[in-house]
Amino acid sequence: MLKKLVLMLVALAAALPAVAQGPDALGTWKESPAKSAIVSFVTAVTTPGSPDFVAPADRIATFDNDGTLWPELPMYTQLAFALDRAKALVPMHPEWKTQQPFKAVLEGDLKALGAAGERGLAQIVGATHAGMTNDQFAAIVQDWLAKARHPRFQRPYTDLAYQPMLEAMAYLRSNGFTVYIVSGGGVEFMRPWMDRVYGVPPQRVVGSSIKTRFEMRDGRPELFRLPEVNFIDDGPGKPVGINAAVGARPIAAFGNSDGDLQMLQWATRSGRRGLGVIIHHDDGEREYAYDRASPFGRLDRALDAAKANGWAVVSMKDDWARIFAAKP
Amino acid sequence: MLKKLVLMLVALAAALPAVAQGPDALGTWKESPAKSAIVSFVTAVTTPGSPDFVAPADRIATFDNDGTLWPELPMYTQLAFALDRAKALVPMHPEWKTQQPFKAVLEGDLKALGAAGERGLAQIVGATHAGMTNDQFAAIVQDWLAKARHPRFQRPYTDLAYQPMLEAMAYLRSNGFTVYIVSGGGVEFMRPWMDRVYGVPPQRVVGSSIKTRFEMRDGRPELFRLPEVNFIDDGPGKPVGINAAVGARPIAAFGNSDGDLQMLQWATRSGRRGLGVIIHHDDGEREYAYDRASPFGRLDRALDAAKANGWAVVSMKDDWARIFAAKP
Repeated sequence: MLKKLVLMLVALAAALPAVAQGPDALGTWKESPAKSAIVSFVTAVTTPGSPDFVAPADRIATFDNDGTLWPELPMYTQLAFALDRAKALVPMHPEWKTQQPFKAVLEGDLKALGAAGERGLAQIVGATHAGMTNDQFAAIVQDWLAKARHPRFQRPYTDLAYQPMLEAMAYLRSNGFTVYIVSGGGVEFMRPWMDRVYGVPPQRVVGSSIKTRFEMRDGRPELFRLPEVNFIDDGPGKPVGINAAVGARPIAAFGNSDGDLQMLQWATRSGRRGLGVIIHHDDGEREYAYDRASPFGRLDRALDAAKANGWAVVSMKDDWARIFAAKP
Repeated sequence: MLKKLVLMLVALAAALPAVAQGPDALGTWKESPAKSAIVSFVTAVTTPGSPDFVAPADRIATFDNDGTLWPELPMYTQLAFALDRAKALVPMHPEWKTQQPFKAVLEGDLKALGAAGERGLAQIVGATHAGMTNDQFAAIVQDWLAKARHPRFQRPYTDLAYQPMLEAMAYLRSNGFTVYIVSGGGVEFMRPWMDRVYGVPPQRVVGSSIKTRFEMRDGRPELFRLPEVNFIDDGPGKPVGINAAVGARPIAAFGNSDGDLQMLQWATRSGRRGLGVIIHHDDGEREYAYDRASPFGRLDRALDAAKANGWAVVSMKDDWARIFAAKP
C-alpha cells in the first residue's frame, strides 16, 4: 500500500511543472544593478498580492537574437551563411564571377558589398534563400551549421550562445514566463536549431521572412520560397511581428541594438510594470567591444533610451562571469 | 502525517494536466463514420507503440472558423460587422449616401455590393477596420458582439458556436493536441473573443490581416491600423499562415469549404497519418443547407477532394444531435 502510494507520488511529481527557480539560477551573473533589476522585476510580477502581479498567461518575454543571445561580429551569422551559400552555388552560376554583388561575395570584398546596398543584399538573399522548399532550406541550414565555424572562436556558431542569457531564459520560464525570440534574422534560418540551442520551439520564433507559395509537388504539399521580401522584423517591425505571433504585449524584452528600441518601448511603456534589458558589448577580450559606431548591431539611440526609460544595461565585461555556453 | 500526505496528493493532482478523454467526450456526436474517423485517428496517434504514434509536441490540429465553428450564412459575421460599422460611421461620412460601395451598404443592396467586387470590399474594410489602433479595434469588436444578433436565430453570434465542434476541440486538447484557428477572417476580429468562446488564446489564432504601423501616441506604444491588405489567410494562403504561426505541419485539419482545401492537403498528405474533416451543411431546418453553389462557404472542389483523399465528411443533419452551444 505504502509502496503504491510512493509510486503514485513519484508519477505525480514527474508530471508537475518545473518548480520556480530563485536568483541562484542566474549562476554566471555577478551581483550587479542589471541582475538586481531582473530579479526584482520577476519577484514583483510573480508574487501574489503584489501590485505588479501578472497572471502566468500574460508573462511574455521577448529576446532579440543577434548580439543578444549569440555574437553578431565580425558579421551576422546569417550573412556568413549567405556568403558561404553563394560560394557553394557558383558552379551553377559562373556569371557571378563578374557580376555584382556576387563578385564582391566571392572575393570577400566587403567594401563593394556595402556599396551594393539594400538592393544588393536582396539579390544575395534571393539567390541563396529562395528557389527551394522550406523543408529543403531547413536541411541546408542544419548542414551549414554543423560544418561552419566562427572565424575568431573556431567553434560551431551554436556553441557560442551566451550562457548568462540561457540562464535568464530558464529563470523566466521557471517563473511562468513564455519566452519568444524576436529577431531581424530570417525565421526559417532560426527555427531549425533554436529549440535545441535555446529551448524555444518553432512557434515562438519571430523573424523576417520572404514570401512562399503553396504547391503540390509529386503529391506532397510544400511551401516554395520566393525571392521576394515578405516582412522585416526589425526596429518598428518588431512590435508588429510580436503582435502577429503573440497577440499580446510582452512585459519583458531583452535586446542589444537600435533595432530593439521599439520592442523595448512596446514591453515597458504599455502601462504595466515592464522590464527592459540592453546587452552592452564592452568585452573586447572575451567577445567584442562596440556600440555607437558599429556597422552590425549599432547601439546608439537605444543606449540613450535605456537611461531615459530605466532599462537595465548589462556590461558583458563586468556582469558576466562567463560568456559562452560551451566551455573552451 | 496522513492528512499532510492527502493534502499533498490533492495539490499534486490539481497541478496535473487534464486526463485524456475517451470518445464519450464527443457527447453530441451520433455514431457515424465521421465520429469513428476522429476517434480512431486520435487513438492511433496517441497510443504508445502504435506505428502512427505522434509525440504530443507535434500534435497540431487546425480549425477553420466560418462555417466550421459557427454559421457563415446569411453572410460572414465579419461582413455583418463591417456593414453595421459603416452605418455607424455615416454621420462622419455624409458622402457615403451617394458613393459606392457605401451607398449599397447603407441601402442593404447586396447586388450592388457584389458588383463592387474585391475593390469595393477592400474599400469597406479600409473604412471600417482601419484608422484606429489594434486595441481600439478590439474594443469596437467586443462592443459590437455584445449587441449584435444573428438575423435568423436572434442570438449573439458567439452563442452560435457549434457544440459538437467545441467537444471535438476539447477531446483533441485532452489528448495532447494543440488547437489553432486558421480562418480567412481578420485575425484582430477573432482574437478578442476566441479564448472565451473556443478556449483558443490569441497566439493560436491565425487569420487575414491588414498592415499596421508602430507609433508612440502620448508616450504609449500603439499599432495603428492601415487601410492596406497585409495577408489573405484563405485557400493556398492557409498553409502559409499556419507555417508562419506554428512552424510545423498540422496532423489534423477541420474545414467546410473550398477555402480549406489546401489546409487539409497540408495536414493529410505530408507523409504521416493525418486527419481531414469536412463539415457539410445539409441541415436547412436547424441551420443551413448549402454546398457547391453557395456564394459564402462554397464547398465544391473540397467535397470531391474529400472522397479522393479519404477525408471524413460530417453530415450536420445526421451526425450531430445538437447544433449550437447555447441552448435555445
